Amino acid sequence: MIDKSTITAANEAAEAALRADYDALGEHLSRRGIDIAAVKDKVAAYGIAIPSWGVGTGGTRFARFPGTGEPATIFDKLDDCGVIHQLTGATPRVSLHIPWDDADPADLFAKAEETGLAFDAMNSNTFQDQPGQAHSYKFGSLSHTDAATRAQAVEHNLYCIELGRKIGSKALTIWVGDGSNFPGQTSFTRQFDRYLDSARQIYAGLPDDWRLFTEHKMFEPAFYSTVVQDWGTNYMIAQALGERAFCLVDLGHHAPNVNIEMIVARLIHAGKLGGFHFNDSKYGDDDLDTGAIDPYRLFLVFNELVDAEGTPGFDPAHMLDQSHNVTDPIESLMNSAMEVQRAYAQALLVDRGALGGYQDDNDALMASETLKAAFRTDVTPILRMARLDKGAAIDPVPAYRRSCYRATVAEARPKADGSGGGIV
Amino acid sequence: MIDKSTITAANEAAEAALRADYDALGEHLSRRGIDIAAVKDKVAAYGIAIPSWGVGTGGTRFARFPGTGEPATIFDKLDDCGVIHQLTGATPRVSLHIPWDDADPADLFAKAEETGLAFDAMNSNTFQDQPGQAHSYKFGSLSHTDAATRAQAVEHNLYCIELGRKIGSKALTIWVGDGSNFPGQTSFTRQFDRYLDSARQIYAGLPDDWRLFTEHKMFEPAFYSTVVQDWGTNYMIAQALGERAFCLVDLGHHAPNVNIEMIVARLIHAGKLGGFHFNDSKYGDDDLDTGAIDPYRLFLVFNELVDAEGTPGFDPAHMLDQSHNVTDPIESLMNSAMEVQRAYAQALLVDRGALGGYQDDNDALMASETLKAAFRTDVTPILRMARLDKGAAIDPVPAYRRSCYRATVAEARPKADGSGGGIV
Amino acid sequence: MIDKSTITAANEAAEAALRADYDALGEHLSRRGIDIAAVKDKVAAYGIAIPSWGVGTGGTRFARFPGTGEPATIFDKLDDCGVIHQLTGATPRVSLHIPWDDADPADLFAKAEETGLAFDAMNSNTFQDQPGQAHSYKFGSLSHTDAATRAQAVEHNLYCIELGRKIGSKALTIWVGDGSNFPGQTSFTRQFDRYLDSARQIYAGLPDDWRLFTEHKMFEPAFYSTVVQDWGTNYMIAQALGERAFCLVDLGHHAPNVNIEMIVARLIHAGKLGGFHFNDSKYGDDDLDTGAIDPYRLFLVFNELVDAEGTPGFDPAHMLDQSHNVTDPIESLMNSAMEVQRAYAQALLVDRGALGGYQDDNDALMASETLKAAFRTDVTPILRMARLDKGAAIDPVPAYRRSCYRATVAEARPKADGSGGGIV
Amino acid sequence: MIDKSTITAANEAAEAALRADYDALGEHLSRRGIDIAAVKDKVAAYGIAIPSWGVGTGGTRFARFPGTGEPATIFDKLDDCGVIHQLTGATPRVSLHIPWDDADPADLFAKAEETGLAFDAMNSNTFQDQPGQAHSYKFGSLSHTDAATRAQAVEHNLYCIELGRKIGSKALTIWVGDGSNFPGQTSFTRQFDRYLDSARQIYAGLPDDWRLFTEHKMFEPAFYSTVVQDWGTNYMIAQALGERAFCLVDLGHHAPNVNIEMIVARLIHAGKLGGFHFNDSKYGDDDLDTGAIDPYRLFLVFNELVDAEGTPGFDPAHMLDQSHNVTDPIESLMNSAMEVQRAYAQALLVDRGALGGYQDDNDALMASETLKAAFRTDVTPILRMARLDKGAAIDPVPAYRRSCYRATVAEARPKADGSGGGIV
Repeated sequence: MIDKSTITAANEAAEAALRADYDALGEHLSRRGIDIAAVKDKVAAYGIAIPSWGVGTGGTRFARFPGTGEPATIFDKLDDCGVIHQLTGATPRVSLHIPWDDADPADLFAKAEETGLAFDAMNSNTFQDQPGQAHSYKFGSLSHTDAATRAQAVEHNLYCIELGRKIGSKALTIWVGDGSNFPGQTSFTRQFDRYLDSARQIYAGLPDDWRLFTEHKMFEPAFYSTVVQDWGTNYMIAQALGERAFCLVDLGHHAPNVNIEMIVARLIHAGKLGGFHFNDSKYGDDDLDTGAIDPYRLFLVFNELVDAEGTPGFDPAHMLDQSHNVTDPIESLMNSAMEVQRAYAQALLVDRGALGGYQDDNDALMASETLKAAFRTDVTPILRMARLDKGAAIDPVPAYRRSCYRATVAEARPKADGSGGGIV
Repeated sequence: MIDKSTITAANEAAEAALRADYDALGEHLSRRGIDIAAVKDKVAAYGIAIPSWGVGTGGTRFARFPGTGEPATIFDKLDDCGVIHQLTGATPRVSLHIPWDDADPADLFAKAEETGLAFDAMNSNTFQDQPGQAHSYKFGSLSHTDAATRAQAVEHNLYCIELGRKIGSKALTIWVGDGSNFPGQTSFTRQFDRYLDSARQIYAGLPDDWRLFTEHKMFEPAFYSTVVQDWGTNYMIAQALGERAFCLVDLGHHAPNVNIEMIVARLIHAGKLGGFHFNDSKYGDDDLDTGAIDPYRLFLVFNELVDAEGTPGFDPAHMLDQSHNVTDPIESLMNSAMEVQRAYAQALLVDRGALGGYQDDNDALMASETLKAAFRTDVTPILRMARLDKGAAIDPVPAYRRSCYRATVAEARPKADGSGGGIV
Repeated sequence: MIDKSTITAANEAAEAALRADYDALGEHLSRRGIDIAAVKDKVAAYGIAIPSWGVGTGGTRFARFPGTGEPATIFDKLDDCGVIHQLTGATPRVSLHIPWDDADPADLFAKAEETGLAFDAMNSNTFQDQPGQAHSYKFGSLSHTDAATRAQAVEHNLYCIELGRKIGSKALTIWVGDGSNFPGQTSFTRQFDRYLDSARQIYAGLPDDWRLFTEHKMFEPAFYSTVVQDWGTNYMIAQALGERAFCLVDLGHHAPNVNIEMIVARLIHAGKLGGFHFNDSKYGDDDLDTGAIDPYRLFLVFNELVDAEGTPGFDPAHMLDQSHNVTDPIESLMNSAMEVQRAYAQALLVDRGALGGYQDDNDALMASETLKAAFRTDVTPILRMARLDKGAAIDPVPAYRRSCYRATVAEARPKADGSGGGIV
Repeated sequence: MIDKSTITAANEAAEAALRADYDALGEHLSRRGIDIAAVKDKVAAYGIAIPSWGVGTGGTRFARFPGTGEPATIFDKLDDCGVIHQLTGATPRVSLHIPWDDADPADLFAKAEETGLAFDAMNSNTFQDQPGQAHSYKFGSLSHTDAATRAQAVEHNLYCIELGRKIGSKALTIWVGDGSNFPGQTSFTRQFDRYLDSARQIYAGLPDDWRLFTEHKMFEPAFYSTVVQDWGTNYMIAQALGERAFCLVDLGHHAPNVNIEMIVARLIHAGKLGGFHFNDSKYGDDDLDTGAIDPYRLFLVFNELVDAEGTPGFDPAHMLDQSHNVTDPIESLMNSAMEVQRAYAQALLVDRGALGGYQDDNDALMASETLKAAFRTDVTPILRMARLDKGAAIDPVPAYRRSCYRATVAEARPKADGSGGGIV
């Protein structure tokens, strides 16, 4: 963890300017009929989960260029996640990926306690082969043509649940890359039936207070078809499984031009929105930092979420899922968590009464302006004040840099291997 | 109609070469274990519906360049459709669009008898305002914020059913452009609720032996959101309405790169595939001639359809829906009907036993080759012989050109106005 | 024009809050080392051209739903443009489209004087046929296979230049829809040669102090190929023609996912950026209000423009080009002009020294943050103060609504016809 | 190499059916005025290069699932390439990637002699870091901000030329992943200037009888911008460098919906088409087997190439570039080489006189049909007869399978490591 004095010193230097900005914004919002403190409280209460694998440097199929001080174990990763939460106050939970993060539950629990973190959804991995694995996932996992391979994949998911129960997780997220690279390689229908059959077996093993999240993705690693290719298929799955099955939306997993906020609205309508993997993208599943490419789209998603607040049963899970190829992952995750908070804060500023009126009147221009007015508001002072209040850093990245955390762990951790590509 | 002697003369000149090609193909297919006559019989029995509006020259928002001899009334249109069926033997039904084609049912029936045609699905139009209409559809129809506007749109659909009953139609197709052009302009959720409410009223008026087809479309005329934007929403609608409600797939209504044949498979899996609007596209809803851009994609769709043949309740409707901006619409519709037949014939050639084996073995290359082998086969002789057998033209376009039908009707019909754009 | 007292009254009611916001922003910017007055002066000096056709309600190929008080003549249109400039102070020029706006130059000049406007680039129209036109553009214009049709199109462009000279324009913008709807319909190479040949003839008639802007577009109205399909071809054209030929970038004319700001940078690099048609889009050439869908992308374009300020010969033309289907066009154009100003103001706030340093250091995160910090700043008070200073409206849309301008002209102007679709 | 008797035995079993098919096609083509033997001769003379890296199993950033008998060295790879050429007679050249294939030139030359192969273009690799490399390419190579890194990348390219000279190569292909993942990370303009500066240094080292191919790609591994993002930038580069610099087109490197055959035509027009990396794709740079997804698109590319045959200086290089993740790479490469031949043969069948006439008459339908008629022709007998004539296999994949080549090399070669992802 970072020495508290580093944070305090940085905050002291920045506090006066922050208070001036915060007060000015407060007065401005008050003229718009908004209580800044109420917004700040909601933002302060908001938290988003960190994916354990996000603190390592990512890569592409062409190369991976590791940074210094890469975490070697789940315990290293939890240390990094702890720092992120310490500085932002916004990331109280970590989501584990098995078998990458497999460890003794007691040790995991102890480390979580030490770093001030809890465990979010468990993630299974049946898109890679592990050393010594009996059956290969080269041609699929939950939907494989071979029953033994499917059984192995189901078993692995049940193991993830089992481990998750011991460390306080309450959800399992399933993403598979199953699909095909050639027309004809697979029967869409029989493959989907096999997927459903496997998923039902996993669902049957789900504890009563758990939720199952399935994730759709248009393509990659399969390049002609993917068994859960879009929200329509994902919705069919959630319906087929039962009331504790929900759809997970990763912002980068859709076709070009698709209106994602509308998909979010439809899944809310159907009572099947399970949660999010936040990131941003320009081309495909680019896994860029959330809000880096199209911050207005992120706001529009949060506009739907704030609009749905209070709907019975509405409780989507929020997680980041990014690949940090050219930045320090800790910095990217801090910034991204703050971008999500920013979109949330902006969405809270929407004058929903006025918006509803404009919608009823088909006053498209003023309806649009109502959203834009909220989005344009620079809510930075609100986010900063929420952090200051809870002892986190007003400005996390500079504080982190000043702490020399990265250099410190770089000395303690083994030098990462530059070979290989991708997410491994 | 075209003088039978014109067709006969043309066929006589082409018959010898056709028989040579047909026999050679028959021998080749026989070596592949396929009985050419059985394929020919299935192709001969296949028919696709023509959209009445397809025989007029289409346009874009920028301009419409009418051809000569444009049909001025539904009776002119039926004449044109009659010629298409006479020459191809492949288009026994016509689909009407109301109010464009509104007329006395007895007159419609008589004209159909005269032209050898029957009536396919009825199409309602609530995406344009008609002269004297009480409420405008500028801001929507079935999902409009105003109850009176919605009621008017529902009423219009019920009228379409009423008219359709009198002329032997068995289905209503609903496509609406309702949506929004600005984020915030509409509430996704309330708009969808209004749509569902209106659709339920129409469904309640559906005769027991009718089917209701709803059509999704990603965008245009709405450019930010469309209430039935994709097959996922379309599926939610079909589920909400009941067992006689089905999803219609227009090949041009999807996001870039989307795997359409997989959507077809999913809707078959759900028992909700209602039918098709066939056309081709490179960019958006280009409404180009079927098979003009990506004939393999068309084949892959038919591969799913042939694969599903025999599934209980499986009976999708087939219709062309194209905009003919630079060709004689009669020629384009003839060619497109033959392209659909071609894809069907090719799909019939797939060695499904071998394919299933390769799929079970994850032999992606040979599975792909199995589809390609069917697709590569030039089935032209089969289509031609099927036409010759039923007295249609071996080669419809040259026969049509030789008939001077267009020049003849051009003298009888009023000269079309070049003003205005679009589909009107 | 709107009564000055209406504006004054509205401004008086809003001025106190504006001054508070402006002062607070000034203090904040001062802490960031930025002089708010300098930014305001640059914003105040900025102007964007209005397309004359933009003040009419647009449509799609499916329908056009006219508003009330639609302008019937170019003189009506200039009245509307005058109001836009009166209220925003940001739109000093109007761009004419011939033959739509053809009129006696003296009358045009007089009306411009009266409305406080000047004339921007001239636009030719060879994508529609006009009554009595000798040769049709159904199959192309500047690139048509027929020499007489090409000559007619060239002649029309020369006429546009001639008219433009008389009213003080200094540029001609050429956009053609020439292309094809079918593979094989046209020879890409011969068609391009014909285009170049025609364009050279127009260029030869260009006055020495004029510029020629050619515009690329991926598709629509042609749906398989377009002769000037992208910036690469556009660049080839500008090179082939000469030093007064430049490329025009319409933000909605690119393939999905394309990085437009990078194209802008490349054209700047080549010294061939002629100017912009600003609008926004989610799917295709949606022609939505500028900044309505992706305001960050608009900012990134302006970031390139501000970065290039001062480059010798760098002087791109700025124009809006939108289709207003569901809003009052005057309101949309006012808002869009302000959105462009907003992006410009935000781009002026970028700390370019810091940005360059981060780029040199490959500090991707801080470089991104540097842009985001500028974008996030709510520059509304700057735009408002610039308007107040010049006697325009602090908040143009409410002032416009209060003026009842639309209702007033609706009484004087003929009721628009709802028939037809598209842009006509 | 495969025992000749295996091939002979397979051919003998298939020859009778082939001769029947070939004769029937010959008669059919003769009725269309085409001499089948002339087509066969052109197809027989056609050859395409194999990428050395293509014979290894590819992967994604998520995983790589190696096959059995993976080649461990460039000499293994040349063995595999030799088999491909032996069975197809269509792949006489191999393209090397350095440093992956770095070896003693004499050894390379000897192995090529042994396997009946020659060497095609050399490929440099500055998108990965190699062990012991002084400067990392994490933030770019030829366009890196750091001069020493750029110099290292230039030096590597010059080394590739040097090695290539010794083994008879006549071209260097440069593909770099340089770009950025965040808006602001890089200055588009300065980065491009650095690229040009480095490229000029490489060009200066190019032997007089060599060509330089630069390759554009929209995205991946960079996810916001890529320095050579499209053919427009690629063309600027080729222009800047000189007359021996040309643009390479990889079919999978474009934005969605882009008309690639038109880009090919434009580069031919500019005299700058250098060559191709053939593959197929549905979503992004999927690197699927050529013709597997959209065979008509491949045909349309070859239609342009055949159309340009005979143009002075027109001599594009043809190479496959695919990632074989779920098939035996040897099988995929054989099939893909044959698919390219197929598209070439089909393009040779186009009745160019008729096509030109239809184009002149704007007879879009018949022009389209003219291309379709060529595409629909099943040219398989031509390809097979060309192979039989030269002693290759009538049907290469079954012959390969019967040879047990894979099982044989699997025993001799080390078992590949399943760890890591991507192309390594």
